[in-house]
Amino acid sequence: MARRNRKYRTRTDNLGVLPSPHIRRVLPFFDPLDAEQINRLETQVDWIMQDVGIAFRDDPEALRIWKDAGANVDEDTVRMPADQIRALCKTALRDFVQLARNPDRSVTIGGNNQVFAPIYGAPFVRDLHSGRRYATFDDFEKLVKLAYMHPNLHHTGLVIAEPTDIPVNKRHLDMVLAHMTLSDKPHLGAITEMSRAQDSIDMAEILHGRDVMDQNCVIMGNVNTNSPLLIDKVVTEAIRVYCRRGQGIVVVPFILSGAMGPVSTAASVAQAMAEALMVCAFSQLVRPGAPFVLGNFLSSMSLKSGAPTFGMPEPVMSNYAIGQLARRAGLPLRCGGSLTASKIEDAQAAYESADSMHSTMLAGANFVLHAAGWLEGGLCTGFEKLIMDADRLGSYQKLLGQGLDVSDEALARDAYGEVKPGGHFLGSAHTFRNYQNAFYEPTLSDSENVESWEEAGSKDMRQRAYDCWTGMLERYEPPPIDIAIKEELSGFVAKRKADLPDVWY
Amino acid sequence: MARRNRKYRTRTDNLGVLPSPHIRRVLPFFDPLDAEQINRLETQVDWIMQDVGIAFRDDPEALRIWKDAGANVDEDTVRMPADQIRALCKTALRDFVQLARNPDRSVTIGGNNQVFAPIYGAPFVRDLHSGRRYATFDDFEKLVKLAYMHPNLHHTGLVIAEPTDIPVNKRHLDMVLAHMTLSDKPHLGAITEMSRAQDSIDMAEILHGRDVMDQNCVIMGNVNTNSPLLIDKVVTEAIRVYCRRGQGIVVVPFILSGAMGPVSTAASVAQAMAEALMVCAFSQLVRPGAPFVLGNFLSSMSLKSGAPTFGMPEPVMSNYAIGQLARRAGLPLRCGGSLTASKIEDAQAAYESADSMHSTMLAGANFVLHAAGWLEGGLCTGFEKLIMDADRLGSYQKLLGQGLDVSDEALARDAYGEVKPGGHFLGSAHTFRNYQNAFYEPTLSDSENVESWEEAGSKDMRQRAYDCWTGMLERYEPPPIDIAIKEELSGFVAKRKADLPDVWY
Repeated sequence: MARRNRKYRTRTDNLGVLPSPHIRRVLPFFDPLDAEQINRLETQVDWIMQDVGIAFRDDPEALRIWKDAGANVDEDTVRMPADQIRALCKTALRDFVQLARNPDRSVTIGGNNQVFAPIYGAPFVRDLHSGRRYATFDDFEKLVKLAYMHPNLHHTGLVIAEPTDIPVNKRHLDMVLAHMTLSDKPHLGAITEMSRAQDSIDMAEILHGRDVMDQNCVIMGNVNTNSPLLIDKVVTEAIRVYCRRGQGIVVVPFILSGAMGPVSTAASVAQAMAEALMVCAFSQLVRPGAPFVLGNFLSSMSLKSGAPTFGMPEPVMSNYAIGQLARRAGLPLRCGGSLTASKIEDAQAAYESADSMHSTMLAGANFVLHAAGWLEGGLCTGFEKLIMDADRLGSYQKLLGQGLDVSDEALARDAYGEVKPGGHFLGSAHTFRNYQNAFYEPTLSDSENVESWEEAGSKDMRQRAYDCWTGMLERYEPPPIDIAIKEELSGFVAKRKADLPDVWY
Repeated sequence: MARRNRKYRTRTDNLGVLPSPHIRRVLPFFDPLDAEQINRLETQVDWIMQDVGIAFRDDPEALRIWKDAGANVDEDTVRMPADQIRALCKTALRDFVQLARNPDRSVTIGGNNQVFAPIYGAPFVRDLHSGRRYATFDDFEKLVKLAYMHPNLHHTGLVIAEPTDIPVNKRHLDMVLAHMTLSDKPHLGAITEMSRAQDSIDMAEILHGRDVMDQNCVIMGNVNTNSPLLIDKVVTEAIRVYCRRGQGIVVVPFILSGAMGPVSTAASVAQAMAEALMVCAFSQLVRPGAPFVLGNFLSSMSLKSGAPTFGMPEPVMSNYAIGQLARRAGLPLRCGGSLTASKIEDAQAAYESADSMHSTMLAGANFVLHAAGWLEGGLCTGFEKLIMDADRLGSYQKLLGQGLDVSDEALARDAYGEVKPGGHFLGSAHTFRNYQNAFYEPTLSDSENVESWEEAGSKDMRQRAYDCWTGMLERYEPPPIDIAIKEELSGFVAKRKADLPDVWY
């Protein structure tokens, strides 16, 4: 056992930070829709935007912006000819760089680039030692450290878990500060209220400097619409704060087919696309050229209980469909993730997460929130799940980034001169030249024979993941940061917290 | 707990036999190779067939057949111009029907059809109650019953586990008899020796009748080459027995890149294709038009230990590549499966199986052996794993068979007349019309909230799978069979067993 434990420790010693900031995909996209399917879906998208209309609620400034642009505004419902909406969306960038404070970790979002970020928004955490519980800021800091250290996560997101021991109106300050100081990867800012979005922007300006921020996207917000067909002020205010400052926004229709959309994948995909395009157009009215990511979170339900289900054929299909539609619209896409309804890190969690993520990967999602750590339909962040999912992300990273090499060296003709029928290639010169980079080497998969595995304690993947993340935290070292900037950030947070009364709801 | 247990029992009551005999795919294939990649791979395939050559060993009859066809035979190495090999392969069928004794369960293999069959060849079994052990005939019969009962398995394969308590030279008789009498789905026959292949053919003739067998494929053999570049007499003799009788043969190069092929996915794919095409040509020399399935079993290795690894990016890529090449060759394809190196039904097993199977599915594999039950790199059949994998196959079945419906009904325009912004579709007429068939309903995924799940005993997927398969066996009823045929089959087996001395190796 000692020997085997040492082996795992040695393997996971590599889990620090790699130079690769994101995936530059060479594998083609999987585009399963034919011309008729595309035509019927896009006609439906256009019909929703120009005939059904979408409500922009509780934000008179948003309605004023629409009216100024010539939209038909009927109470709070906005309609506009689809060609005009699509024309407005043309100023959005096909791809853009989100600068990280460590420029080696900056990511490109859009085009052939794919960026993986952890789960967002869970109030609970679970780990093998302490079980399930409300998340605290201590958990949150550990999760930020792990997301920073893991080479297969390119972006740290924001609410890896809700720090429920901090007042609701102050959490964003501690969270943003943690991402800025415990990690040097790119991350998100808050969106739940206009002032919190502004705090995030102000902190990003301290971190990156005004000039850099003027010229670059250094922070993004991620915000859900109120599907069906409703955009509330949380969305439009976040856009006004982020986009006016030239920063990025990810807008995500959250649709369980049958509840927030019709009980049909095609209709829900079209609705999601219509909602997102309308908001994209709005973002470009606020600031032409503002970085915009078209989001999509579409899943199915158990028709027995109404509970959301994940990794099922309907959301897999919607990932493939929305990928194709987003590329046609020329917009960066967020969809999918390692999603599951399972409560623990069992086979259900892994089957559902893998089918969800395999389709997310092939669909070409450019920004993948929830790529690691998701349990219980998003209610719970799993420490082991985070590390297990992230290990599998390395496999997708290799598949997308490498595709199929058919160079002369890959075809290995010289090896056939050395190896006879029924022989083996283990000792061939080609094998010696290539074996070190031939295969993805996962950290947490055990491929040894059953005797070795039993000798090492018959550990399942959860137990190995527990050993892995606890070991990573022991080795954590914060990335360097200018002490004056760190103090200014801390001072900003302290002042804002002092100015605000505690609010717990 | 009682309530919840009852619920699972009720759900799994549905696990009998569905009418759908296999998947008729409407989802397009994922074809990631571009023209240059295809050209370079096919040039390599041709080079191996005509310049490197492939050895046909220990079967002088096979060499005679090749010589008669004009091949260049140098000792036992066969070479032939690639265009001649490819021309010979043209008589193989693009698709064919394997008749089941219950015609409702006949399957079409090839084209847009996909057929799922369980694991093949494991000497061990594992279940949650009794752990890991050598498989017995009692285990084997249980596994055949489960494969018969499960609606997502279309074919029962043959060696779902090795009945190690029966002499090696008699196992095939008991196994084939079990498939023929405990199930009415299509299955395979033996290949390990010419006489055993002949026994399988003779039993199929008893079951189906001479006339039916003359006109139809009613049984197939599945046999591996001795990669690299070696076809031994087990393969050529099996082909001579099966194909001469107009029956099907699946021939599978088994290649771990770096051992039985170069340490390169492209080279291994090309080698597998070359070996399989040479054997296909041979099968067509034996009998033009004989049903042939081009097999592929390609995986990676741990470079630390040499142990095979599964579900990794390299075999995922090889599934996609071989799918595209097999379609270009116009041949039915066997590849992939729910493969894993894990010893138990944990998250590792599920992640690896799902990535392996998702690519198998999109690649368009027509006959998928190992689609359920595989553990430990194929050394062990898991009872729970069989049922867990099969549950996920239903999701693939829906995705492939349904694709994306964009009919007027699917676009649900009327629902937008009923539901206002921020409302919900739960009560809309469209939902009432469509909810029953809207979503795949898995049997073993638990999507309830954490409180319900804990109240039901906090069972993980393995435990639910154990409850499921034990309940299925309690409900098992054999499909009807003509008593005279059954007696004739039993008589054949009894006579053959009496004629043979027990052999245990």
